Amino acid sequence: MIQTTKLAHIGIAVKSIAGSIGFFRDILGLQVLAMEDVPVMKARVAKLSTGNTVIELIEPLPGEQTVTKFLDTRGEGIHHICLEVADIKLATDELIKKGYHPVYDEPKTGAGGHKVNFLFPKETHGVLIELSD
Amino acid sequence: MIQTTKLAHIGIAVKSIAGSIGFFRDILGLQVLAMEDVPVMKARVAKLSTGNTVIELIEPLPGEQTVTKFLDTRGEGIHHICLEVADIKLATDELIKKGYHPVYDEPKTGAGGHKVNFLFPKETHGVLIELSD
Repeated sequence: MIQTTKLAHIGIAVKSIAGSIGFFRDILGLQVLAMEDVPVMKARVAKLSTGNTVIELIEPLPGEQTVTKFLDTRGEGIHHICLEVADIKLATDELIKKGYHPVYDEPKTGAGGHKVNFLFPKETHGVLIELSD
Repeated sequence: MIQTTKLAHIGIAVKSIAGSIGFFRDILGLQVLAMEDVPVMKARVAKLSTGNTVIELIEPLPGEQTVTKFLDTRGEGIHHICLEVADIKLATDELIKKGYHPVYDEPKTGAGGHKVNFLFPKETHGVLIELSD
C-alpha cells in the first residue's frame, strides 16, 4: 500500500492566469504563494493557498501539449490532483506490482525538483493523479 | 473578499463506492473516516483522509439527479471541491454583490448540518465549488 502523506495540490487548467487569478485571489480570498514559468512543464503556474493545501492554476505556454489538449476538449477546470507520498520510488514499484501502469517506470524529476509519477484516469476512477515526493 | 479557511474536501463521483473504495483505501493508502448514506443528498458517501484534507466518494442513490447526470455524461471523476469559509452568509452576500450567481440566495443546510452554497463552473473557470461553514 502506498503511504500517502498529504494532498499537495489541485491543478486547475486555465487559458490564462492573468484572466483567472482575480477570481481565486480577490473573490475566494486565496493567498498567492508564487507565480512562475516552469520550463520543464512548458507552463505558467500560479500557486494559491487554501490554508491546508494548494491550488495551482496552470496556463500552457507555446509548445505545451497535455494541458492544451485538455483545454481544447474540455475547457477550463480541474486537471489533476497531486498526492505527496512518503517514497515515490516505492510507490511506483508497488503500483506496477499491483498491475497499474504509472506513466514512468522510474519516477522523473518534475517542477520544483520533486520526483513525480502519474496515474491515468482510466485506472483511478476518472482522476488524473500525480504522485510526488 | 470571501474568507476561505480551508479546502474541506474534494468530491469524486463514482458509480459505486463498493467498486471504487479499494483503490483509494488499499492502493493509495487513504484512511476511511466514514461511510454513510446521506438522505438529503440522495447519495452514499465515503470520506477518506489524505492527511490534510478529505476525499469524498459520492455514489448517487435512486432518484438522485445531479451526480447521476454527471456520471452519465462525463463518467467517474472529480465532481466538485468544497471550500470552508469563515461566514457562509457573508460569503453569499459578497458573491451576489460582486455579480456572481450562487445557487441559493440564502445558504441552505446540507450534509452534516453545515450551511452550504454552490458556484457553478461557468462562473469559476470550470470548477463546481461548494462553499460551507
